[in-house]
Amino acid sequence: MIGIFDSGIGGMTVARAIEQLLPDHPLIYYGDIARTPYGPKSPQTIINYSIRNTEFLLDKGAKLIVIACNSASSVATKILRERFRVPIIEVISPAARRATEISKTGRIGVIGTKATVKSGIYQQTINAERPDFKIFSQACPLLVPLVEENWLNKRETKMILRRYLHPLKNKQIDTLVLGCTHYPLLSNLIQARIGKRVQLIDSSIQTASFVREYLVRHPECSSEQAKASHTYYASDCTETALNVAERIFHRPMELIVA
Amino acid sequence: MIGIFDSGIGGMTVARAIEQLLPDHPLIYYGDIARTPYGPKSPQTIINYSIRNTEFLLDKGAKLIVIACNSASSVATKILRERFRVPIIEVISPAARRATEISKTGRIGVIGTKATVKSGIYQQTINAERPDFKIFSQACPLLVPLVEENWLNKRETKMILRRYLHPLKNKQIDTLVLGCTHYPLLSNLIQARIGKRVQLIDSSIQTASFVREYLVRHPECSSEQAKASHTYYASDCTETALNVAERIFHRPMELIVA
Repeated sequence: MIGIFDSGIGGMTVARAIEQLLPDHPLIYYGDIARTPYGPKSPQTIINYSIRNTEFLLDKGAKLIVIACNSASSVATKILRERFRVPIIEVISPAARRATEISKTGRIGVIGTKATVKSGIYQQTINAERPDFKIFSQACPLLVPLVEENWLNKRETKMILRRYLHPLKNKQIDTLVLGCTHYPLLSNLIQARIGKRVQLIDSSIQTASFVREYLVRHPECSSEQAKASHTYYASDCTETALNVAERIFHRPMELIVA
Repeated sequence: MIGIFDSGIGGMTVARAIEQLLPDHPLIYYGDIARTPYGPKSPQTIINYSIRNTEFLLDKGAKLIVIACNSASSVATKILRERFRVPIIEVISPAARRATEISKTGRIGVIGTKATVKSGIYQQTINAERPDFKIFSQACPLLVPLVEENWLNKRETKMILRRYLHPLKNKQIDTLVLGCTHYPLLSNLIQARIGKRVQLIDSSIQTASFVREYLVRHPECSSEQAKASHTYYASDCTETALNVAERIFHRPMELIVA
């Protein structure tokens, strides 16, 4: 069973992509809505929560953990891998790999939460592969609350995006990593602002492909079955959370509070 | 010793007002920065955190608890009073009382988080005293993240405020309760938008006066001393949190992580 955790609901973009690519795999999701957001918090706090979330998923029978949150992936992956014996897949490497593959100019933008940008993880990961690539990062802390408020088409959201993307506009990037799972919900606005020639990388889609490849290479982790169950747990449930979840899945959602 | 808790740093506006009115009273503050914000979360989650925060303050020797968070005051006061034997002071009643005193038209606006507005607590409290008064409430969920980002003078903040205050503009209110401890940091913008004739009520100042009155009436809770200590604890510490804290206190702040 694939276990996926996130700071809240944004990681459901990853869960949905995995559901679509691997519909026959049982999947369990845990969204830490009671402690959301992680992005503005300290690495130690994010690590503590990530350990707790992983333990929850392992208790429920997960054999493979997906950290569906860029902030947690940025600061907690190493410690989770040291602490737990199951495979831990994070969202940074798949997106970084894809950026490295498709960038022609070697100039890549990354937008994310404060925790993600401050960690420098995208830069490290891309430069480990391609030391000649230039990475330009920008923290966009207000985008998560704007998405959670469903202000996807409001003028204020466009203005705030303009302000955040402004420093990246004259850097001649040809690739922009959406380094937070909430951002794909704003991809139209981001594309319009950053320009058509810049390719956006949605870490949720890249991570789902990575999970599929991983399961092909490690069939012992796979547990395909007809009518595989997909169960969504959360540490809290609010109307806003359910609204965002339903916008992501385009179907009515049930969140089990645990 | 006065124990004050908040969902994070906003409640420091209450702590500062208490420090200024009661400088000789030892004070201990606990900001739950690791789980902030409370406003978008469910009542049960806010209650669980409020119990935990109160226990922390009692363990440190608090004899009187101030809930310096409107969201927690709205949904957790009753349960904290049932559970703990110390006096529990919340931020709603002092602000509601002041609104009742000063409103001439009996038309009062309240802005706050989703949790506070959904609870209907200001309406209940004011109407218990003055059933003839009309209360108009508006949730303003993006104001907390905007204040935490220090976007106090940005055009986007003004536009978002305009959008939130618009429904209150034609209600002929003469009084507006700032029903969230972050909002006093935006009071100039709010006053400009809602109009000079509307009186703003800052719950932090009202609550500090209420605490002072309470201690006069209950000297057994008082513990005045020269050079009283004021200690600030938090469940997490980030640069953003320290910045907001220093903006509130106009002095360098130390947060002890516990």
